[in-house]
Amino acid sequence: MAGNRIVVYKGPGQVAVDTIDYPKLEVPSAVSQAKGLTRKADHGVILKVVSTNICGSDQHMVRGRTTAPVGQTLGHEITGEIVEKGSDVQFLEVGDLCSVPFNIACGRCRNCKERKTGICLNVNPDRAGSAYGYVDMGGWLGGQADYVMVPFADFNLLKFPDKDQAMAKIRDLTMLSDIFPTGYHGAYSAGTTTGSTVYVAGAGPVGLAAAHSAQILGAAVVIVGDRNEERLAQARSFGCETVNISEDATLSEQIDQILGTPEVDCAVDAVGFEASGHGRGAGEAPATVLNDIMTVTAAGGSLGIPGLYVTGDPGGVDPDAQEGTLKVRLGLGWAKSHSFTTGQCPVMRYNRELMMSILHDRAHIADAVNATVLPLTDAPDGYRDFDQGAAKKYVLDPHGELASV
Amino acid sequence: MAGNRIVVYKGPGQVAVDTIDYPKLEVPSAVSQAKGLTRKADHGVILKVVSTNICGSDQHMVRGRTTAPVGQTLGHEITGEIVEKGSDVQFLEVGDLCSVPFNIACGRCRNCKERKTGICLNVNPDRAGSAYGYVDMGGWLGGQADYVMVPFADFNLLKFPDKDQAMAKIRDLTMLSDIFPTGYHGAYSAGTTTGSTVYVAGAGPVGLAAAHSAQILGAAVVIVGDRNEERLAQARSFGCETVNISEDATLSEQIDQILGTPEVDCAVDAVGFEASGHGRGAGEAPATVLNDIMTVTAAGGSLGIPGLYVTGDPGGVDPDAQEGTLKVRLGLGWAKSHSFTTGQCPVMRYNRELMMSILHDRAHIADAVNATVLPLTDAPDGYRDFDQGAAKKYVLDPHGELASV
Amino acid sequence: MAGNRIVVYKGPGQVAVDTIDYPKLEVPSAVSQAKGLTRKADHGVILKVVSTNICGSDQHMVRGRTTAPVGQTLGHEITGEIVEKGSDVQFLEVGDLCSVPFNIACGRCRNCKERKTGICLNVNPDRAGSAYGYVDMGGWLGGQADYVMVPFADFNLLKFPDKDQAMAKIRDLTMLSDIFPTGYHGAYSAGTTTGSTVYVAGAGPVGLAAAHSAQILGAAVVIVGDRNEERLAQARSFGCETVNISEDATLSEQIDQILGTPEVDCAVDAVGFEASGHGRGAGEAPATVLNDIMTVTAAGGSLGIPGLYVTGDPGGVDPDAQEGTLKVRLGLGWAKSHSFTTGQCPVMRYNRELMMSILHDRAHIADAVNATVLPLTDAPDGYRDFDQGAAKKYVLDPHGELASV
Amino acid sequence: MAGNRIVVYKGPGQVAVDTIDYPKLEVPSAVSQAKGLTRKADHGVILKVVSTNICGSDQHMVRGRTTAPVGQTLGHEITGEIVEKGSDVQFLEVGDLCSVPFNIACGRCRNCKERKTGICLNVNPDRAGSAYGYVDMGGWLGGQADYVMVPFADFNLLKFPDKDQAMAKIRDLTMLSDIFPTGYHGAYSAGTTTGSTVYVAGAGPVGLAAAHSAQILGAAVVIVGDRNEERLAQARSFGCETVNISEDATLSEQIDQILGTPEVDCAVDAVGFEASGHGRGAGEAPATVLNDIMTVTAAGGSLGIPGLYVTGDPGGVDPDAQEGTLKVRLGLGWAKSHSFTTGQCPVMRYNRELMMSILHDRAHIADAVNATVLPLTDAPDGYRDFDQGAAKKYVLDPHGELASV
Repeated sequence: MAGNRIVVYKGPGQVAVDTIDYPKLEVPSAVSQAKGLTRKADHGVILKVVSTNICGSDQHMVRGRTTAPVGQTLGHEITGEIVEKGSDVQFLEVGDLCSVPFNIACGRCRNCKERKTGICLNVNPDRAGSAYGYVDMGGWLGGQADYVMVPFADFNLLKFPDKDQAMAKIRDLTMLSDIFPTGYHGAYSAGTTTGSTVYVAGAGPVGLAAAHSAQILGAAVVIVGDRNEERLAQARSFGCETVNISEDATLSEQIDQILGTPEVDCAVDAVGFEASGHGRGAGEAPATVLNDIMTVTAAGGSLGIPGLYVTGDPGGVDPDAQEGTLKVRLGLGWAKSHSFTTGQCPVMRYNRELMMSILHDRAHIADAVNATVLPLTDAPDGYRDFDQGAAKKYVLDPHGELASV
Repeated sequence: MAGNRIVVYKGPGQVAVDTIDYPKLEVPSAVSQAKGLTRKADHGVILKVVSTNICGSDQHMVRGRTTAPVGQTLGHEITGEIVEKGSDVQFLEVGDLCSVPFNIACGRCRNCKERKTGICLNVNPDRAGSAYGYVDMGGWLGGQADYVMVPFADFNLLKFPDKDQAMAKIRDLTMLSDIFPTGYHGAYSAGTTTGSTVYVAGAGPVGLAAAHSAQILGAAVVIVGDRNEERLAQARSFGCETVNISEDATLSEQIDQILGTPEVDCAVDAVGFEASGHGRGAGEAPATVLNDIMTVTAAGGSLGIPGLYVTGDPGGVDPDAQEGTLKVRLGLGWAKSHSFTTGQCPVMRYNRELMMSILHDRAHIADAVNATVLPLTDAPDGYRDFDQGAAKKYVLDPHGELASV
Repeated sequence: MAGNRIVVYKGPGQVAVDTIDYPKLEVPSAVSQAKGLTRKADHGVILKVVSTNICGSDQHMVRGRTTAPVGQTLGHEITGEIVEKGSDVQFLEVGDLCSVPFNIACGRCRNCKERKTGICLNVNPDRAGSAYGYVDMGGWLGGQADYVMVPFADFNLLKFPDKDQAMAKIRDLTMLSDIFPTGYHGAYSAGTTTGSTVYVAGAGPVGLAAAHSAQILGAAVVIVGDRNEERLAQARSFGCETVNISEDATLSEQIDQILGTPEVDCAVDAVGFEASGHGRGAGEAPATVLNDIMTVTAAGGSLGIPGLYVTGDPGGVDPDAQEGTLKVRLGLGWAKSHSFTTGQCPVMRYNRELMMSILHDRAHIADAVNATVLPLTDAPDGYRDFDQGAAKKYVLDPHGELASV
Repeated sequence: MAGNRIVVYKGPGQVAVDTIDYPKLEVPSAVSQAKGLTRKADHGVILKVVSTNICGSDQHMVRGRTTAPVGQTLGHEITGEIVEKGSDVQFLEVGDLCSVPFNIACGRCRNCKERKTGICLNVNPDRAGSAYGYVDMGGWLGGQADYVMVPFADFNLLKFPDKDQAMAKIRDLTMLSDIFPTGYHGAYSAGTTTGSTVYVAGAGPVGLAAAHSAQILGAAVVIVGDRNEERLAQARSFGCETVNISEDATLSEQIDQILGTPEVDCAVDAVGFEASGHGRGAGEAPATVLNDIMTVTAAGGSLGIPGLYVTGDPGGVDPDAQEGTLKVRLGLGWAKSHSFTTGQCPVMRYNRELMMSILHDRAHIADAVNATVLPLTDAPDGYRDFDQGAAKKYVLDPHGELASV
């Protein structure tokens, strides 16, 4: 237990695997001081990380689109085995294999009690909500590592009922920490239900997870839009319709071709603030997706917006974008009586249910997002390929436990 | 039954009372042709108008902020007595006193069946949803008149159970056609419930109705913001706290003074696209209120947006505003996991319940909005005074039936 | 258009196909008089019946377990083509192929406006709610016939978007009039969602429809219980687990064998008041299923009860049962904080969505319930075989239009 | 801190104030062993009890209607000040004044995470859910005492924001531990909203709390039924209508007199299994209230059932009643499409909101239930008078801190 290998941000476009100290059962000092917690985390556990995925929101940092400092540790999509537990962990044991919701939550504040674990009030000095290995989140260490500390473990962790059964499906279960619930949250908050027609903007992993979730929620037709043909092919591989937004035909026209009507019941923004405009060679246009989904959603529809929008984007296209102000065609949405749901997915609201779907062969999320396992040491390759648009979801395997499954 | 006096738009800043033909049991030809309805409206009734209110959204037309042509008839807040009925009106009788939801709805399309009567698919050639006496709504005649035709009457009308009892409370009941449900919709869709703290932007009639609705929904504290002191005094008259947004202190600071915390649980935008900026002498700044309510609403809160936003505003401050595109600080709302509900209030969802509250003395909406009765002929005065910021809700009385109540 | 063949109740255990007058666009006189409707139904249509199913609740009448008089016409599961329409039918045309919700609804009363079409206030002199061809429902003629009159057609009918496409799936679409939405209502009101474990009591057509609906709603595991092995085999044919309640092992023990825990998340009573007790040769015990589902549902679960319970059952096992009073172990349900949803399914709440699922190949209800087509003249055989426990859902084909599909 | 005075059951009809050991930060051994918790409760606090109320469900034990042994400690309605805290209590301090939800909850199991704190899975060896000072609940000590231990304190306790402000309203705030949320839960789960007509069966403290809650939820008319005239007078004192069910007129007739229709929108059973029949001198008839509320609730209504029903009642009127099996007229409820919500109120779902209502003078629960303060030593008098039907809610004051407020 000498050290702990961990993926670290090294500057725009660069990550590396460093070795730091083995984690302690302690909360970060910034959190402890600001929120009054004891430094010692009797409520926490140390996990041996079994799998940990690279997320699109990690890319925002690595691209230099945030204020993350060099040295920022990375990784908030974590699955692991308990190797040590604090004295007030009552309902988990060493050896339990668990999924970690990316939102760190205390389980004791008003928001956590109301199931709003994405905006816990007690774990981040700067605002509501936190995550492992992320900038401006209080300094919790990342989980793209050999080991990681998880606080308030009884509350936060989802234990898999049977370890062998779980390892046999670990490529699917590893998606429970973020991307699968996040995609599901998008589809669910868009009102997807039996028989819905759904448009998902973006065929990256979150978009694909939203599309598969829409199927699970009973959608009649799921249409995925992107400008990356490889990713669109991935969407078609599990039964989605697709539209390429770089084509000349408008999005409405393409949807009309598929459905016989230019509007869908529900839409999901799985892109966020780094959106591009339409047409060949279009540049960054941060409100494009929001305006698209208002255009193609029928009056009365709901819009799920799991795609990330930020309050500060130093690399934004203009001063407005740099503070998260976008030119939204709100008049259009208002005329259509649209509803909008934004924000981080409260993973705990969905992860147990989705675990059941995976364990009973109802959900096939690893195939949908094209889960691809890499050793921890290959993390830099994974970051690079993902940034270049690979139609893959990279799963890091620190201890070589996924090699055989 | 010779003629029908009716309020008509005569150009920017001008209305007059004209006399037109007595209404027929017919749907407008534009609607009939586009939607395939029979011209003859066996489903309709003719109402003798007992009361009809001037609405802030009428003002948008009268100020010349829409494409309304000279000659546009006005009035969509209507209460009246049935004087004639079509052959397929089954459950209403001549003599019944009824409230008319401002949204015209067929009761037979998918949206109406789903209670989304604000976006009926069958009554407007141009888009989902319609109203009486409004531009781009299919040509239904206005109800600031002696008589008005109401289609699909069995579905649309809310009959008062006892005519005498109703006339005794007609100043309150007249608010059921639009403003009271619209304010309630704002407070309700903002998630107001027992014990909530609520901020209502705007102390015009919709804002006051939202504030009173928030009280009815159980709010612990209701704070109303405006720059018109007379209207703020009106808000205080029924127990609201107030903030004057033209003061130097920020909105957050003023809320902190009242609550001991700078954020509320819920917020309502009762202003819409003609919003002004903050501070003394601020000009029009259409996204101000939206950005304000994101600023002052706690993470996890919901925002009700009954204030009108439009897809076309010829008088907008810039080309973006002219097509309803606003600079919204969406990054902020997203970071706080806000939800947004926009659009016309589906009046039928709330009017029966609010009628019961009025009839049983739980709601006192006439006092809250300062209902002020005028003869129909004084409509031009009402429009002018309301436009100048009078803290009054004007109720027109075509037949002199309210004089004595 | 001389006459109209129709299935008629002839006394306990007997039905026959009689010929009566071709239907008129009229509401039954009892309804007209009690509810004040015009006799003439300008809002109605005449349908040529394309398919019409035999329902378990028809069997209650045919077994003599109701007060249905000899001569009662039968049939409330109807799909047909419009051959005549009243003058106030605005949005449907002669030639349209439509599904008829079994609940007759006016679309104009408080309950219909609130989507509670199962308890319409205007179509039955005796109570809220009505149906075609049923005792104590106001005298609406049955639809196991060549032709049938449907009132308030714009509101009631669900038009299929394309007639040829619909005829290709007519064996599925015919289930939209009752059994599929009824089963779905049971699964939905039991709280079935992604990952749920669900127990469905009864493997008759409603139970099978509930089981398939639970799958559509995302259930991880669906367990169906019955004492009829042929019906249980039918349940297994589309992926359900099954338990035979006539076995010695208790229901809890059998569920434990399947799930590893003796309780499920959600349960559906698809049996109703003619329930039998457990074990071999058990007699009628009307509260058995209710008590079973409380026993096997975990604390906090919801119970969907689409199975029919009645206020009068002349053939009940004792005076209590004869007035619909059952010995319910409510103390058990209360200790587990159970919620219960009872009553007729409001078909209109679900039928459009389920149609979309069928048309886009997400739902396969005909296979699930083993749809079996018979000519109208063979209705007596269908009633007999169904009563004897055939694992089939009989679809009558009055005009021979299903023969080739 | 030598000893701890506490109210103890001494046999049917008898309670006494005994002195036992000062409480320890330990969970009961039965809970620890069955559920795997550490005996030491680092998550717990010791409260100095400021107020603690006598509850109707205490009376079930004291009347000998449960299996409570002699020596059972009593009291689950507790408000107190923290005098000692465990090492993992992170967000509360010694000196904080807090309300204790009567449901003991771990905050870490599936049910607690889903806000179902009334059926926590980790605090009772025998079933889901637990409470302080109650039979068959795992042995947690009662709170009608000088001091009491509260486990999982960060999760369970509701801290009052200002101690002085709270003490000024302590007679109201003491009702947050059980009765006010329980009554509110009944009214809320009955679907009470703006404009509803509501029937509350029972004018004991829970009934009065449900009635006041119905007002807070916006009810147009609240009707309370009982056979105790003193309690009905108490209901009238805050604006309720009343019916005396011992009168000759039926309940429906009496409601018709008040409303002009024999049915209400919503109904609450605030009586439970010790219900009496109708008319003068009627004996115990445990299903009476359930059947009443089905009779008087309109089709489509919901029934809130906070009144206690049990799985074992040694004093029940017959063998069925003794195991909690009641003769429920379910056929009637089914015909009316009623929904039913049963079970212990999950206090945490409502207590913060109701606290806000009290602190901001929107709720006046102490007056509604006639809060009456007694010294702890007078507990036996309080039990006796309450059992005899006093229209009072007794609040015990162990440390004499309420005398002056």
